[in-house]
Amino acid sequence: MPEEEIIVQVDSLKAFCRQVFEKVDVSRGDAEVTADVLVQADLRGIGSHGVARLRRYFRGLQTGQMLARPQITVERETSTTALIDGGAGLGPPVGVRGMRKAIEKAEEMGVGFVSVRNSTHYGIAGYYAMMALGHDFIGISMTNSDVLVVPTFGRDAKLGTNPISVAVPSGKERPFVLDMATSGVPRGKIEVYKRLGKALPLGWATDERGIATTDAARVIENLNHRAGGGLLPLGGVDELLGGHKGYGLALLVDILCGILPGAGYADTVYPKSAEGKPLPANVGHFFGALRVDGFRPLAEFKATMDDIIRRMKDAPKAEGQQRIYIHGEKEFEAAEERTAKGIPLHPNVMADLKAIAEEIGISYAL
Amino acid sequence: MPEEEIIVQVDSLKAFCRQVFEKVDVSRGDAEVTADVLVQADLRGIGSHGVARLRRYFRGLQTGQMLARPQITVERETSTTALIDGGAGLGPPVGVRGMRKAIEKAEEMGVGFVSVRNSTHYGIAGYYAMMALGHDFIGISMTNSDVLVVPTFGRDAKLGTNPISVAVPSGKERPFVLDMATSGVPRGKIEVYKRLGKALPLGWATDERGIATTDAARVIENLNHRAGGGLLPLGGVDELLGGHKGYGLALLVDILCGILPGAGYADTVYPKSAEGKPLPANVGHFFGALRVDGFRPLAEFKATMDDIIRRMKDAPKAEGQQRIYIHGEKEFEAAEERTAKGIPLHPNVMADLKAIAEEIGISYAL
Repeated sequence: MPEEEIIVQVDSLKAFCRQVFEKVDVSRGDAEVTADVLVQADLRGIGSHGVARLRRYFRGLQTGQMLARPQITVERETSTTALIDGGAGLGPPVGVRGMRKAIEKAEEMGVGFVSVRNSTHYGIAGYYAMMALGHDFIGISMTNSDVLVVPTFGRDAKLGTNPISVAVPSGKERPFVLDMATSGVPRGKIEVYKRLGKALPLGWATDERGIATTDAARVIENLNHRAGGGLLPLGGVDELLGGHKGYGLALLVDILCGILPGAGYADTVYPKSAEGKPLPANVGHFFGALRVDGFRPLAEFKATMDDIIRRMKDAPKAEGQQRIYIHGEKEFEAAEERTAKGIPLHPNVMADLKAIAEEIGISYAL
Repeated sequence: MPEEEIIVQVDSLKAFCRQVFEKVDVSRGDAEVTADVLVQADLRGIGSHGVARLRRYFRGLQTGQMLARPQITVERETSTTALIDGGAGLGPPVGVRGMRKAIEKAEEMGVGFVSVRNSTHYGIAGYYAMMALGHDFIGISMTNSDVLVVPTFGRDAKLGTNPISVAVPSGKERPFVLDMATSGVPRGKIEVYKRLGKALPLGWATDERGIATTDAARVIENLNHRAGGGLLPLGGVDELLGGHKGYGLALLVDILCGILPGAGYADTVYPKSAEGKPLPANVGHFFGALRVDGFRPLAEFKATMDDIIRRMKDAPKAEGQQRIYIHGEKEFEAAEERTAKGIPLHPNVMADLKAIAEEIGISYAL
């Protein structure tokens, strides 16, 4: 419903989010970072991870699933690796600290890897991977997440949508920024189909028996009650089109983000009390940075990156197609347009922001 | 046609391959390694990458696409990274050297990454990733490969099947060994369907217009003549089921294996002369090793790996399914069975091995 969308300027949206976080006792710096991560998602056209989630963070802080003033500690450290405990703080400031440390280590040692435990939802994975681009490093960012995805041949959701992001610097062309959930689609896509009453394509989700289904309402209902079924891994319901590969990637992300730092994993990332009350989350992240010049002079690398990007973009198109994209390209274009013209927000999202503002008594002037 | 298969013992098959390589001037050590990589593929049930490919290596050495006595040199090195030039040698000994160096660096520094240029086909990616398991490290192995895969919305093949392998140590359970092409299926699968006259599932390949097709013969014919179309990335023909994600992973592998070391990339990995004669290949690889104890005590890590593995395997099954697999599990089981009973080879493969033996005048006693 684009005609109902309301255009909001980037700076005022960011300032609003920051104010909300500060009002619930988040420090100025952490509020700033979290606001930036949310608004960057909207800027890049990934509305599912933008200010539409402000409520989720706000509520997380209220219920104690996330802490406003966490103790973030470095638990273990070598010249190339570190383990950070996020103290159940907001994911974005924890994530930024983790990725910064990976970059510092890469600066010094050529590579750096940081795993993080005891964190919470960190927003778009690409935000952290892209932090490496300013240093001309390759950046890696992954996180585990709330249980939604079924393993191949399994009936119940046992893994998160566990995204992988890798950002690679280029020369004249825009950087390569892969940022992908390891499920075929995110939960939000199923919700959109439910709202529109549309049949799901087979290969997105399963019903409570673990059979591929077109029934969006049933999938959401089952997920809400943990009644079986869930999202399918990239590649679909079985091994025919490669569902076991998507499942393997999701499990790999859970190993690097959950097992390696000692965070939650599988269905233990967002624990609940016996009465169903949310307990502090224990999300894990994994960050990496790699200096290109440990392998090849940077200028050569960048020139060749430009060449492979152009080889893809300039290649002949399939019948009926006008364009081949490079990963991140659509998002860079969205960000350029929205930086200039503002971010279109759905009226429901606007109403929710307004409700939050009223709840905590701050002015709402977007 | 399993009833026609011939059972061959592991050791004699390995010895035979080694003899073939030595006969065409490969050093004893390199012949040994290459034979081991091929036979390990057959042992693990990945026949497409086993001794059925002996002819390909043999011919590569004859045509000069691969060199029997390569100069393998370390071109650049830091405490955590290295660039190796494979001198157009056989992929397996080059790969083993690369992975060993990554492991040595990890031993010392916590992590090690090695990129390799000017190599050739290295067999199963998992072989190298699994080398890290003996050290209780996480191992990473990737390679680019001959052009077969179309980018999303593209008409022509511009990328290889570019596999990713990651091996992770565990405790009592078998290790996690992801080893996946980033295409939905390998070329060999299309060839099987062609031979059987079966219709391809939509989502495996496209025709010369770039449209998803069920016609296996047409896909193979087009690939042989570079007439357009090819294999589809994991996720299928468009963005609906996530084809852009598989395409992104394939491109990422080409960046790490082709662009980072300065190897061939996109459609330049296996160059040909103007007359269509194969020139020395320029395949690239990327290897990594990561010490677990840079993040977490090894024993804790292993115990938690066992737990996540059991959580997956013991989870309720989808209707009609008996088993949930962990990546690598099927291959470990095949290897156990075949180590005990021998490797079943197709009569065509046996005939080809015999023909090679006759060509070079060695005894054929398998």
